[in-house]
Amino acid sequence: MEKRTLEQHALECRKEERERLEQQIRFIVEIDKVKNIFRQTYLADRERKENDAEHSWHLAVMAVLLKEHMEEDVDVAKVMTMVLIHDLVEIDAGDTYAYDDAGAKTKREREVKAADRIFGLLPEDQGKYFRLLWDEFEEYQSADAKFAHLLDNFQPFLLNDASEGKSWAEHGVHKSQVCRRNERLPETSQIIWEKMMEVMEKHIEKGTLLGD
Amino acid sequence: MEKRTLEQHALECRKEERERLEQQIRFIVEIDKVKNIFRQTYLADRERKENDAEHSWHLAVMAVLLKEHMEEDVDVAKVMTMVLIHDLVEIDAGDTYAYDDAGAKTKREREVKAADRIFGLLPEDQGKYFRLLWDEFEEYQSADAKFAHLLDNFQPFLLNDASEGKSWAEHGVHKSQVCRRNERLPETSQIIWEKMMEVMEKHIEKGTLLGD
Repeated sequence: MEKRTLEQHALECRKEERERLEQQIRFIVEIDKVKNIFRQTYLADRERKENDAEHSWHLAVMAVLLKEHMEEDVDVAKVMTMVLIHDLVEIDAGDTYAYDDAGAKTKREREVKAADRIFGLLPEDQGKYFRLLWDEFEEYQSADAKFAHLLDNFQPFLLNDASEGKSWAEHGVHKSQVCRRNERLPETSQIIWEKMMEVMEKHIEKGTLLGD
Repeated sequence: MEKRTLEQHALECRKEERERLEQQIRFIVEIDKVKNIFRQTYLADRERKENDAEHSWHLAVMAVLLKEHMEEDVDVAKVMTMVLIHDLVEIDAGDTYAYDDAGAKTKREREVKAADRIFGLLPEDQGKYFRLLWDEFEEYQSADAKFAHLLDNFQPFLLNDASEGKSWAEHGVHKSQVCRRNERLPETSQIIWEKMMEVMEKHIEKGTLLGD
């Protein structure tokens, strides 16, 4: 290329990079809203419920630490990204409590629409990547998705335990509901599932979780 | 090994894995406290200040998206872990506002003590790994640490912009203070530094950031 063409090319690349940055910034500011989507789980200190951003942060840290207990090999960097973005759809679709059967019926439709809008704010390649990760999470088939779901269930479980079963007691949750929600945990991590059963027995004795 | 010895060995491994899991759980529940460490930055909706867990979540998502704008190659999985844990020391040491010169003097001592206690809860290898990441962040020398610091500064900067400079206005922050705090950004990412200067000029015109 001639000098002038080269310079023009450099200018165009620069312009494209600026446009990508502007799209990324719009997305970064938009997802700030997930800090106001509150869940049913109480913080360990029982003082207030936690929000989706805090929950997702917790899962990503746990991904690094608990990888060693998984039955299958996992890609921890991918799982971290997966859990960091898995609840962004709730910006539009809201949080559906794990044991809310009525809400669960319309959940999928609301969330797909939200994914289209929110991931659509990003440069196309990045939006597609996040969407693929979210789809993989939702499909719950791969080893990485199974690890992400384990984290998504085990984190509020640990907070429920630390907060003396406050959320379980408020919602009158039964052990059989927790078991149904976690039915794929034994194949994901035997040792974590054993720990959960041990904790559930303790809460049934205390009366904060209902036996069946 | 004989059959009996093999079985014994398996039992011991199992016991060790259980002990590691208990240590990891204690750490996971302990760091829940970082959700109650509030920063000076307001959320984009101006309604309340954000906490360290939300801030760290935001940085980790941004790490995935903004990697392409860095001048040097970075290990994005490592940077994600680094930013996810970089503020845990504030559980004991509290948040020191970026422009609080008095607090900055005792910050280091308070934070090192906190790092010893908090990372010390983990199995030794994992505690050492997190401590190394935190030390690398604090030293601010490697390409990964520079990227992490860029994220740590650019995120509240974007929230300041989105919240119409609310925190800057409340603290009477000068452009020169922002520039001093960000003096290593141009070498980390030229394009992001240019964007920041553009945003600062806008806020100086509006009067939400003070010129010099």
